[in-house]
Amino acid sequence: MNLDQAIALLANTPAALNALLRGLPDCWTQTNEGDNTWSAFDVIGHLIHTERTDWLPRAKMILQFGGSRPFDPVDRLAQQRESRGKSLAALLDEFARLRSESLAELRALNLQPEDFARPGLHPALGTVTLSHLLAAWTVHDLTHLHQISRIMAHQYHDAAGPWSRFLGVLHCDGHSAPN
Amino acid sequence: MNLDQAIALLANTPAALNALLRGLPDCWTQTNEGDNTWSAFDVIGHLIHTERTDWLPRAKMILQFGGSRPFDPVDRLAQQRESRGKSLAALLDEFARLRSESLAELRALNLQPEDFARPGLHPALGTVTLSHLLAAWTVHDLTHLHQISRIMAHQYHDAAGPWSRFLGVLHCDGHSAPN
Repeated sequence: MNLDQAIALLANTPAALNALLRGLPDCWTQTNEGDNTWSAFDVIGHLIHTERTDWLPRAKMILQFGGSRPFDPVDRLAQQRESRGKSLAALLDEFARLRSESLAELRALNLQPEDFARPGLHPALGTVTLSHLLAAWTVHDLTHLHQISRIMAHQYHDAAGPWSRFLGVLHCDGHSAPN
Repeated sequence: MNLDQAIALLANTPAALNALLRGLPDCWTQTNEGDNTWSAFDVIGHLIHTERTDWLPRAKMILQFGGSRPFDPVDRLAQQRESRGKSLAALLDEFARLRSESLAELRALNLQPEDFARPGLHPALGTVTLSHLLAAWTVHDLTHLHQISRIMAHQYHDAAGPWSRFLGVLHCDGHSAPN
C-alpha cells in the first residue's frame, strides 16, 4: 500500500461511476440479479453509507484508539432507508462530494510512515492495520465496480444468445458475501 | 435487447474507463494478474481492436451477407502489436473516438424491428442474430470493466490483509476464456 497510489484510485472512482451510470435507462441501473440482490442504484447508496460511516471514520479510530476499541459493524442495508426517494443522479453527486471531503481530510491527517502499521480492531476480522484499511478501501471501490458491471451484464444474459458462453462477466457468481 | 438501451450503455463506456484509469500510477494500469494475463492497458488495446474489427463490422456483415459467410475470428493478441509505444491516455482517446464513430454509424443504419432477427454465422458459436450481437457488444464492454476492476484489485490483494476475505473481487477467478 502506498498512500499516493491509493488516493489516486479513490479519487477516480466517483467520476468513473458517474460516467458509467448517469443518464442510463432504469433497465440498467434499477434492476438487480434476483431476490435479495442489489441494483447499481443500491450499490451507490452503499458506497455513500460506507464513505460516511466506515473508511475514514475507522482510520481516525485507529489513530485515536488503536486496537483498544472495535470498529462499529457496517450496516449493509442502510441504503434501503437512506436512498429512498432520491434519484441516481443525486446519489452520484452525493458520493462524489463525500469522497472529495474524505480525501481532503485523509491528506490533512498528514500520515507518517510509522502510522501505517498502527493497529485497529475489526469486529469480525480481528486485528488489522491502518495500511490494511487504506488498501481495503480501494479494493472495496473495485469490488463494487466489479459487482455493478456484473449486475448490468446480467440484464442481457439471455439477450446475448450464444455469446453468453464467451462473456466472462456472465459466469461470475458474485463473491461478495462474507463467510 | 432494445437498441436505445444498448446504445446508451455503449456510449458511456469510454468516458467511464477514462475517468477510472486516466492519470493513475502505472502500478494500477500496467500490471496484470500473472503470466499470460492482461493489464488494464492491454484491455483498452483489446477494446480498440474489437471496436475496429468486430462489433460494427460484424453487424454490417449480417445485414449484407446474413448467415452465408462466417465472421472473421477475433485476434485476441492484436493489442500486443497495436498498442506498442502508445500511452494509456492515447489509447483512451482512440477508444473514445472509435466508439463515437461506431455509434454514429450504427444509428445511421436506421435498423428496423425486423432487422434484429437477421442471422449471422459466428466461426465458433454458429448461428447468431443481429440482436444477439448488439446485446453481446454491451456485455463485452461490461466483461472488460469487470476484468479491469479485478486486475486492479489483485494488486492490493496482500495489502488488504484480513479484509481480503470480505472483498469479493479478490475471489473472482476470471471467467473470460472461451471453453
